[in-house]
Amino acid sequence: METDAGFKAALEEAQKGCAEGGVPIGACLISSDGKVLGRGHNMRIQNGSPTLHAEISALEHAGRLSAAVYRDATMYTTLSPCDMCTGACVMYKVKRVVIGENKTFVGGEDYLRSKGIEVVVLKSNECEELMTKFIKEKPEDWYEDIGEDEK
Amino acid sequence: METDAGFKAALEEAQKGCAEGGVPIGACLISSDGKVLGRGHNMRIQNGSPTLHAEISALEHAGRLSAAVYRDATMYTTLSPCDMCTGACVMYKVKRVVIGENKTFVGGEDYLRSKGIEVVVLKSNECEELMTKFIKEKPEDWYEDIGEDEK
Repeated sequence: METDAGFKAALEEAQKGCAEGGVPIGACLISSDGKVLGRGHNMRIQNGSPTLHAEISALEHAGRLSAAVYRDATMYTTLSPCDMCTGACVMYKVKRVVIGENKTFVGGEDYLRSKGIEVVVLKSNECEELMTKFIKEKPEDWYEDIGEDEK
Repeated sequence: METDAGFKAALEEAQKGCAEGGVPIGACLISSDGKVLGRGHNMRIQNGSPTLHAEISALEHAGRLSAAVYRDATMYTTLSPCDMCTGACVMYKVKRVVIGENKTFVGGEDYLRSKGIEVVVLKSNECEELMTKFIKEKPEDWYEDIGEDEK
């Protein structure tokens, strides 16, 4: 139930990003009792932002929270988190990270686990399709988003 | 020369943050030819932002850059970078991270080194004094900023 709500919100955010012509990655931070603390999507193209990846966006929209709230929270994200977003989850010591897919990109999952954070990968076809289409259509934006040269 | 300009800008940002009543940490991203790409300071208190740490702020103000620009750039920061800011430097593969001080807080320096990023610590008394004063005066804001319970 909790997973469903968090993943649904993250996917909706990714779809919103897609509709805006942006990098289609969404995220949602959920409290231990299932409340949405914050949700958001990648804003590279829409805002010219190199730091508002989906997870950072969700954390930013959640606003200032005490350490205790993060420690019981779950970060849902449609894509395996990059090093920056991994580091944000590690710094705030979130309890769990639930990932839509890690086929199009593998981020800091092992690092999260090494820090005692539970990692769940949902293998969502919807998330994968959004990314596959985007990478094919706008490779320059995608590789810029993860600090890599275009392949 | 390059170090001086980058560190000077980061320290000015920290002092600006201090004058605003914020977490007194500043950062500046400098290109290989000494150009300021972006500078900023922690905006937790001023903007209610949990993600605009100094380094994220500097990256955000730099705007969208290609992978090649980050790879030759140096991130100057007045304080040892937290896991989120460390992750941002790792993701964008900056060449070097120059740190004002790491006495009041030690972040991801070893992790940066393990990823091949050069780390320099300047042991700046000015940076340390700014942080020592802030942590003493506003411990609740400081520990919230790094996702920890107040000591």
